[in-house]
Amino acid sequence: MNQLRWDPTLREWAAYATHRQDRTFLPPPEYCPLCPTKPGGFPTEIPRASYDIVVFENKFPSFIPDAPEPDEPGTILAPTAPGQGVCEVVVYSDEHEETLAGLPEKRIRKLVEVWADRYAELGALEYVKYVFVFENKGEAIGVTLHHPHGQVYGYPFVPPRPERELKAARDYHEEHGGCLHCDVLTQEHAEGRRVLHKGEHFTAFVPFYARYPYEVHVYARRCVPSMAELTGAEKEDLARTLKRLLMGYDALFRFSVPYVMAMHQAPTDSGDYGSLAHFHVEFYPPNRTAEKLKYLAGSEQGAGAFIVDALPETTAGWLREAIERAQR
Amino acid sequence: MNQLRWDPTLREWAAYATHRQDRTFLPPPEYCPLCPTKPGGFPTEIPRASYDIVVFENKFPSFIPDAPEPDEPGTILAPTAPGQGVCEVVVYSDEHEETLAGLPEKRIRKLVEVWADRYAELGALEYVKYVFVFENKGEAIGVTLHHPHGQVYGYPFVPPRPERELKAARDYHEEHGGCLHCDVLTQEHAEGRRVLHKGEHFTAFVPFYARYPYEVHVYARRCVPSMAELTGAEKEDLARTLKRLLMGYDALFRFSVPYVMAMHQAPTDSGDYGSLAHFHVEFYPPNRTAEKLKYLAGSEQGAGAFIVDALPETTAGWLREAIERAQR
Repeated sequence: MNQLRWDPTLREWAAYATHRQDRTFLPPPEYCPLCPTKPGGFPTEIPRASYDIVVFENKFPSFIPDAPEPDEPGTILAPTAPGQGVCEVVVYSDEHEETLAGLPEKRIRKLVEVWADRYAELGALEYVKYVFVFENKGEAIGVTLHHPHGQVYGYPFVPPRPERELKAARDYHEEHGGCLHCDVLTQEHAEGRRVLHKGEHFTAFVPFYARYPYEVHVYARRCVPSMAELTGAEKEDLARTLKRLLMGYDALFRFSVPYVMAMHQAPTDSGDYGSLAHFHVEFYPPNRTAEKLKYLAGSEQGAGAFIVDALPETTAGWLREAIERAQR
Repeated sequence: MNQLRWDPTLREWAAYATHRQDRTFLPPPEYCPLCPTKPGGFPTEIPRASYDIVVFENKFPSFIPDAPEPDEPGTILAPTAPGQGVCEVVVYSDEHEETLAGLPEKRIRKLVEVWADRYAELGALEYVKYVFVFENKGEAIGVTLHHPHGQVYGYPFVPPRPERELKAARDYHEEHGGCLHCDVLTQEHAEGRRVLHKGEHFTAFVPFYARYPYEVHVYARRCVPSMAELTGAEKEDLARTLKRLLMGYDALFRFSVPYVMAMHQAPTDSGDYGSLAHFHVEFYPPNRTAEKLKYLAGSEQGAGAFIVDALPETTAGWLREAIERAQR
């Protein structure tokens, strides 16, 4: 059952996918469905003895290409729609214990190519309005499989959070005539205190208004709407910048840090926002210290207002130092 | 340090309160700061031998009444502001092991009076724009103190989530001429399948567009903007409805269910939204089953799109049955 329902009180879609209740949940390593299929062993999702990167359709998808018309017709107030879209799994490695941080830069460079490819291919589907590349890492973030992997969702709508960003960029453009994200980046460069790493084509920084103590944004320096339009040199620098950042996270905490990684880029329909997007990657690690997590509780969930325990300037200092240390 | 920073990419304030990093974290029961002070024992926050309900200012506040001008001036793009506001703790009982569900209806009736009083008193402060009554319950939601208590935040701005609701209500009113929430309620009553309990003055239901499998909204039947305007009979019925719902949650799961409880009502400045609010209470329990939690991961945090594993009609059926069972 894949169905969308409209929330008229927040003016957003919620997506229902009931079969996901039974999805594979933290299986023992020997039953990992993302590992290579061993000769004589149980058949994993990947009938190969080894591989670099594998992409396949999620077996427990939030959206499916041929979603039926909902049997719940809904109402004028709260209509329904088919949960039509695509959900893919991107396996980063055949090594069960690997992480994105640990992959060779070359492999991450390939991964960037894969992400750009999925963006273009899913985005070309008539019913996909937004392609979202992301990774959920670590049990603290709710992963159900530890094998290193990310996901790509092709949504049948522009999801609320990128939409708010795009609207802000549009309003900013109308008021000031430039790109909001370019101006944010200029300001971070000018101030410098929250900049973690300035590669040739990408900059990683803790935003002035970070919601998580260790939130990091990685911005393309050129005003480029999506990964599909990155040059080879830019892709290489993105891979390098991601690798450095992730090694820094792990060096700072001295364990493999959980996070949500979210890529924001242009919607893939011919909608209102096309030219307003500025490709960037956001990381939200849930840790507020090595031992304690930041929970989204009353203020965040019920009021939508984030309360942050640490100043971005402070955490940026620690993180920058850890990134440098990890490079030595 | 209490400071607001403006996020120009989402057009929202984020609040910084660095001293909260050191707040009391799950102390052993004998050092609970919300318990009565025992003769000869360590002084808790409450210098009394017993009490019903106690309200005091949070010792680790997200906002403070006399917040200084930020030493970070910010920029035109991302201004700062003082983190001026009020954060109160509302202790429900002197019994450490008690829960809101377990309190006698009479005590909850008193609590409703306290909430209404705090709404009026904090709302009257010139710098408080929105009074938010809430409870974070259970370690799964990140509580740092188990003693039964809720909180009241007086925000210096209308927080993003109620603001979106109010905007939706305003747009709806302009298009259709009625109250959005009244019409949602009429629809839920007409359909009936998701209604859990219909008291004399309040209705509890799983919304058609629930984001959590066991999300419940409790709506005032009369179109009343805030708790301050509830009649005595309405307050009584609110207490009864909350008690029944919470007993139902615990009966369904067979343990004391964690949740975020959030009350949405009218902003308390003389702003745009005054007459558009319709008082209601929302519950978000993180459990998707007795053993498994719903995590806010990539889709929810990075894209703002909720993926739900269970249909509201199904969970409403189970929850309604549990509420009835708990009454026998």
